[in-house]
Amino acid sequence: MRRNGQARAGLAEQPRGTMGQRAALAERYRAIRGLTEELCRPLATEDYVVQSMPDASPAKWHLAHTTWFFETFVLAAALPDYRTFHPGYSYLFNSYYNAVGDRWQRSARGTLSRPTVAEVYDYRRAIDECLLEWLAGASEQALRSLGPVLILGSHHEQQHQELLLTDLKHALACNPLRPAYREPAPSPGGKAPALTWTTYPAGVRWLGHDSEGFAYDNETPRHRVLVESFQLASRLTTAGEYLAFMEDGGYQRPELWLSDGWAARCAHGWQAPLYWEQQGETWSLMTLHGMRELTADEPVCHVSYYEADAFARWSNARLPTEAEWETAADGLPIDGNLLDSGHLHPAPAGTDFAPSQLFGDVWEWTASPYVAYPGYRTPEGALGEYNGKFMCNQLVLRGGSCATPASHIRASYRNFFPPEARWQFSGIRLTRDA
Amino acid sequence: MRRNGQARAGLAEQPRGTMGQRAALAERYRAIRGLTEELCRPLATEDYVVQSMPDASPAKWHLAHTTWFFETFVLAAALPDYRTFHPGYSYLFNSYYNAVGDRWQRSARGTLSRPTVAEVYDYRRAIDECLLEWLAGASEQALRSLGPVLILGSHHEQQHQELLLTDLKHALACNPLRPAYREPAPSPGGKAPALTWTTYPAGVRWLGHDSEGFAYDNETPRHRVLVESFQLASRLTTAGEYLAFMEDGGYQRPELWLSDGWAARCAHGWQAPLYWEQQGETWSLMTLHGMRELTADEPVCHVSYYEADAFARWSNARLPTEAEWETAADGLPIDGNLLDSGHLHPAPAGTDFAPSQLFGDVWEWTASPYVAYPGYRTPEGALGEYNGKFMCNQLVLRGGSCATPASHIRASYRNFFPPEARWQFSGIRLTRDA
Amino acid sequence: MRRNGQARAGLAEQPRGTMGQRAALAERYRAIRGLTEELCRPLATEDYVVQSMPDASPAKWHLAHTTWFFETFVLAAALPDYRTFHPGYSYLFNSYYNAVGDRWQRSARGTLSRPTVAEVYDYRRAIDECLLEWLAGASEQALRSLGPVLILGSHHEQQHQELLLTDLKHALACNPLRPAYREPAPSPGGKAPALTWTTYPAGVRWLGHDSEGFAYDNETPRHRVLVESFQLASRLTTAGEYLAFMEDGGYQRPELWLSDGWAARCAHGWQAPLYWEQQGETWSLMTLHGMRELTADEPVCHVSYYEADAFARWSNARLPTEAEWETAADGLPIDGNLLDSGHLHPAPAGTDFAPSQLFGDVWEWTASPYVAYPGYRTPEGALGEYNGKFMCNQLVLRGGSCATPASHIRASYRNFFPPEARWQFSGIRLTRDA
Amino acid sequence: MRRNGQARAGLAEQPRGTMGQRAALAERYRAIRGLTEELCRPLATEDYVVQSMPDASPAKWHLAHTTWFFETFVLAAALPDYRTFHPGYSYLFNSYYNAVGDRWQRSARGTLSRPTVAEVYDYRRAIDECLLEWLAGASEQALRSLGPVLILGSHHEQQHQELLLTDLKHALACNPLRPAYREPAPSPGGKAPALTWTTYPAGVRWLGHDSEGFAYDNETPRHRVLVESFQLASRLTTAGEYLAFMEDGGYQRPELWLSDGWAARCAHGWQAPLYWEQQGETWSLMTLHGMRELTADEPVCHVSYYEADAFARWSNARLPTEAEWETAADGLPIDGNLLDSGHLHPAPAGTDFAPSQLFGDVWEWTASPYVAYPGYRTPEGALGEYNGKFMCNQLVLRGGSCATPASHIRASYRNFFPPEARWQFSGIRLTRDA
Repeated sequence: MRRNGQARAGLAEQPRGTMGQRAALAERYRAIRGLTEELCRPLATEDYVVQSMPDASPAKWHLAHTTWFFETFVLAAALPDYRTFHPGYSYLFNSYYNAVGDRWQRSARGTLSRPTVAEVYDYRRAIDECLLEWLAGASEQALRSLGPVLILGSHHEQQHQELLLTDLKHALACNPLRPAYREPAPSPGGKAPALTWTTYPAGVRWLGHDSEGFAYDNETPRHRVLVESFQLASRLTTAGEYLAFMEDGGYQRPELWLSDGWAARCAHGWQAPLYWEQQGETWSLMTLHGMRELTADEPVCHVSYYEADAFARWSNARLPTEAEWETAADGLPIDGNLLDSGHLHPAPAGTDFAPSQLFGDVWEWTASPYVAYPGYRTPEGALGEYNGKFMCNQLVLRGGSCATPASHIRASYRNFFPPEARWQFSGIRLTRDA
Repeated sequence: MRRNGQARAGLAEQPRGTMGQRAALAERYRAIRGLTEELCRPLATEDYVVQSMPDASPAKWHLAHTTWFFETFVLAAALPDYRTFHPGYSYLFNSYYNAVGDRWQRSARGTLSRPTVAEVYDYRRAIDECLLEWLAGASEQALRSLGPVLILGSHHEQQHQELLLTDLKHALACNPLRPAYREPAPSPGGKAPALTWTTYPAGVRWLGHDSEGFAYDNETPRHRVLVESFQLASRLTTAGEYLAFMEDGGYQRPELWLSDGWAARCAHGWQAPLYWEQQGETWSLMTLHGMRELTADEPVCHVSYYEADAFARWSNARLPTEAEWETAADGLPIDGNLLDSGHLHPAPAGTDFAPSQLFGDVWEWTASPYVAYPGYRTPEGALGEYNGKFMCNQLVLRGGSCATPASHIRASYRNFFPPEARWQFSGIRLTRDA
Repeated sequence: MRRNGQARAGLAEQPRGTMGQRAALAERYRAIRGLTEELCRPLATEDYVVQSMPDASPAKWHLAHTTWFFETFVLAAALPDYRTFHPGYSYLFNSYYNAVGDRWQRSARGTLSRPTVAEVYDYRRAIDECLLEWLAGASEQALRSLGPVLILGSHHEQQHQELLLTDLKHALACNPLRPAYREPAPSPGGKAPALTWTTYPAGVRWLGHDSEGFAYDNETPRHRVLVESFQLASRLTTAGEYLAFMEDGGYQRPELWLSDGWAARCAHGWQAPLYWEQQGETWSLMTLHGMRELTADEPVCHVSYYEADAFARWSNARLPTEAEWETAADGLPIDGNLLDSGHLHPAPAGTDFAPSQLFGDVWEWTASPYVAYPGYRTPEGALGEYNGKFMCNQLVLRGGSCATPASHIRASYRNFFPPEARWQFSGIRLTRDA
Repeated sequence: MRRNGQARAGLAEQPRGTMGQRAALAERYRAIRGLTEELCRPLATEDYVVQSMPDASPAKWHLAHTTWFFETFVLAAALPDYRTFHPGYSYLFNSYYNAVGDRWQRSARGTLSRPTVAEVYDYRRAIDECLLEWLAGASEQALRSLGPVLILGSHHEQQHQELLLTDLKHALACNPLRPAYREPAPSPGGKAPALTWTTYPAGVRWLGHDSEGFAYDNETPRHRVLVESFQLASRLTTAGEYLAFMEDGGYQRPELWLSDGWAARCAHGWQAPLYWEQQGETWSLMTLHGMRELTADEPVCHVSYYEADAFARWSNARLPTEAEWETAADGLPIDGNLLDSGHLHPAPAGTDFAPSQLFGDVWEWTASPYVAYPGYRTPEGALGEYNGKFMCNQLVLRGGSCATPASHIRASYRNFFPPEARWQFSGIRLTRDA
């Protein structure tokens, strides 16, 4: 998958002539749609159906929802006489767009056996055909108005590629049989280098997307912010470092935790990151390749914000703000252990370059609540519901993970999850005042 | 399915010579195991996986659990060196036997994609082969001790045949697409005859199984009970009669309901039996053949005990006790609209013989809480958990339904469900004091 | 309180002349109303207000609700121009009578600081005055129709006298300070005699009230029932006997429990009867006189039906049916450790007469679900909601407790609670087949 | 209460000589402790006991908890041989200090009738005496280390003065009798002036407390922040303006709401601010003086962050950040409709000075999540739990309300509540980009 995925999804989105743009749009569309299905290839039919918790969705639902997105926001807008593929699908596959209408309750997505997986693939085929046919003949005006929606839809599908993997991992990890998504892979080699600190001077910085290439609305407007001097850890926190926290009573000392965090720890009985299992003296962990022994040098992963925050406090450090993180990441090349590498699990840093691992491996919890940037306005219409309405009760994560397509991530990218979420590939980058 | 099912499952269980008994056991085993799989033939793979509520189980689980029953209680007991087919299956497919060990939580059976459907069929194949091989060579002593368990297992599997259909119906009815389990069937023809009353004199009756043929332990010991004179309705309550109750405000008048029943009505917003849908002026209902219009003459079905009780009170009548019901059913031939008819839905009485419809069509709620018969003792060991531990908070239902195999039902059979249960084929037989 | 309580509430309800009847009614009314207030005398104002669980009510609420009962069902019916004492009180103090109107939610009775305790006593004063004035001048016709309601109201208030004490006990026991309701009392002296068994022959018995004196509707109609031969334990199960069950792993062995019972045990973490506390090697228990050490000879109390049933199974015995219990109690004098004794806690049997302790000490769980007697019809109107609508999901208890007024109990009396209830004075009487 | 309260609580906290400081501390202590009790004077004993929701506490608990604070953090620290007033009180009256030990569950504070109100006042008396005696003779060293704790305790008690009133208001408003806390007051006179906008230029501002006088740790460190140009509304949003939002479908249009806000609206059925009741065509509202008609010119109050945010979006405006708010408030005199005015309800602005009402009337929801200021470190020990551990899932409110003591509020003061909280005096100040 690696090289193909790279070849398919790695398209830049440069401006070009209409013909070139049209072809580039079609090529990118095909590549991303194809990668989604390639990611599903190892699945048994049954794996497409299950939902292991309300926050996760069946793979089948991801396949259909991303298709519904193109159907609803591109085809139905582009074609005056468009008849929906199936009258019941908007109800089933609308995620949260109130402006589009009512929908099936999220927590019950796993109770639906129909449409079958084959029917969902038929749906994908039909929409793909129709969309590519439209794209081939679309007027320039139509391209101007709907081309951006098409691009949004492809980024949207990339987000669901990652969710598809993390939701599936959750379902497989809940299963007492601990089945693997793919063939077992060797433990990650390599050593984590010693942790050092990079110092950044104080100054007024520009934060947010600079308007070249695609970005979500929540990365704009670009704006000034005063960032005081700070130090960033040279690499991600490792499992071994996190084990030291655990062995020092990290999960038994409320003074290290936020109040809501301690309540979550007690309510859920957390004693270790998600997917870790103690077996006698050693720890194993569930990966997309099945269970294997934990290694000290791999980045700690699947921790909540609360755990990341408690670990940072125990370390006499803190989590970075998103302004600090973006200051450090700005201008760095986007390479790292991303989806395209095919590892599907975070790996040791493997370099002394500092800071390393900013992109890929794990999403890095920041200390910044997810709020609008100054001057941000929610766009009009249903697509205005994409980002803006979630700007409350969540924290920003930065940098992408081993399940994020490389062509999807950038320095200004703002991911966001509630503080108790643990099923994403989320980890820890320490920071401290300079 | 009808004739085949008939042929396969309709075996009597007469005593015969060891050779004959051995062959009869094998034949019955094959027939019942085969019918279960035949019932699954219309399913898509996805249909095997879903669980639409905690009380229901995925079809896949039913297939595996019934197999686990034979493996655990026959093979593991019979073969000293028996190695379980899969070390994880007892945890996954034990339903409620504390004596056998821990188990996966019931409400999360629908979150498991593995084992796949194909793997579950492999499991069935392997256990069937092993069991039939054992049976062919079992000693007489082994047959004496485990033959009854084998028979229990086959009745157990018949129970799950019915649950498989009712659980599946629930899942399909919850799906907004309302898919059918099988090809649409014509509306039931026939008229319901006028309701008349049969009078039974007072007397001391014998209640419970008389020890010929198989019965569950909860039908014993046979014991005396004083039954006062009563009158039994000649047929089941029809949908038309129930509609009259609804139109008279049946769901809006708390004085007709038990206190817990009214609370359930309010909590769930009940306004009609389960699976009924109002469309303008008319009512439709979901069946295993998909949605169709309600007909006045078919028996009302999928009502809770609370609704049955409220309807009876509104009718100036009451529900029968199980002693009354068994008094009326005792000695009647077991024919009717049972699973073997293939209708899979209750149908109008179609006869003036009174009382009719005692067997088949719908389980009839009685006014009798499910308690032990005088002198009942819970059997020793894990199989003692089969019935005895549920003798609280449930009501007895009698007579079998359109999803009950004919060879599974008898006059002394005691089914039981909590008063709010509606997803079984449960209906109403009126009774009154003579 | 003892002798006074005796003197006041111990009135018989014989028929007499109108004048005598009128006076007797007034006397009984005054006595019972007075006893309720006497029971409240040890309370601090704060004790009247709190509600420690949804099933319990504040003392203030009991005082007002019993008053509302007389106001609504006697005064408002008797006096054509009657104006309610306060327009908001029916909403606040209606317990569950749908026919009377909406009401404040039961679980939030403890959130109301107003009316104050003094205002509730004013309410009682005003209704008492008005009612006694009406009674003094009521026509014979009015007496014929409302006299029975007045008597019902006085029995209703006696029920609430017991609830007032058990609800208060729960609140005080929940309080970490473990305050006493009344001055500490010495531990009960006396020894429990050895347990023996009384045998009763089989036969058709009459069950239910014989129509002399007051009875609730649920004790009627008197009817025949066939009772097989059985043996009844000579006394209540003692705390020492129950400790042996506990020490034999009673709370750790699911095979001894009903399925719902085991689920309740696990959900609530039950390890002993309610109000028992282990302190090192010894057990203490909370009483209305505060904490004291447990004694082996006192009856075990505050157990659920599930615990009573598990204990009986462990003892190779069972709980009696209500027919068996009433067979044994029929014709025995009503004396024992009732409210009038003032102990407010069960005490050792203290007699070799067998069976002893049938009345008083603890309510005895029977194996009989609470259902209507054959031929029972719910009365018309709001008072029909008194008993009939609760005939589901509860078990019958018999015999009264140390908190039941002597003039309130009789052999045919049917109390009822859900199987998990533990805050009543409920205990165990063993039975077995003869 | 007004003038006395003023006189008592309005003490400045200037540095002075030890003798003067000692006397000032004592005077301030007495004044604040006295005001708490004065606020309770209108209460019936029953009013001290009830808890109408988990977030609120009984008045009795506030009285005791604030006392426990002084006992635990001053007396126990100051006096080596100190014996606690009552061994059970720390368990009962510790709010959330894990370092001090276990505690009674918050949601069950209203189930405790003991200690009685009188006993709680005894507790206050005893601690007051002991503390003042200690203070009179404390060494300079003791004063240096514990003087700040004493001051913290007095601010802590002022916070609970406000909570006492808002919790009580909630309990009285839940009561169907709608009792008043104090005698009815006339509707607020005065008109709200037309809304105008004050423009503030962009610049780097200092945010946070400047270290003169008392401040909570969460107001520090003082730090620089870049604030872009903005405009602030001249006064609070009025009830009339909010009614226009309601009449324009504000509560029916999900596009105006945050996603979590809309979910809260639906879950709770919000149709208006808390305490508003529609009666035919008009709106009434509950106040501490009882029910009265709503007036268009009074500030809207008792809205959640979600409602404030939706209103602002509907108004084509937004809520201020806390940096913007503090920029506007910095240097303004602290006067306004605070607790000292005795109104106990927000009132129309009554002045054209812009911006007005920054202090008092209602707490103003800001758009700023409650997070640590750059460089903030949680203090060591139990008092470090005072603020730091709550820095998640809450929003900052600024400016104090009609229930905030004037000597308690300042421009840098950061109050914080979860976004769905409505029972505080919380309202709306609009802001927009310049």
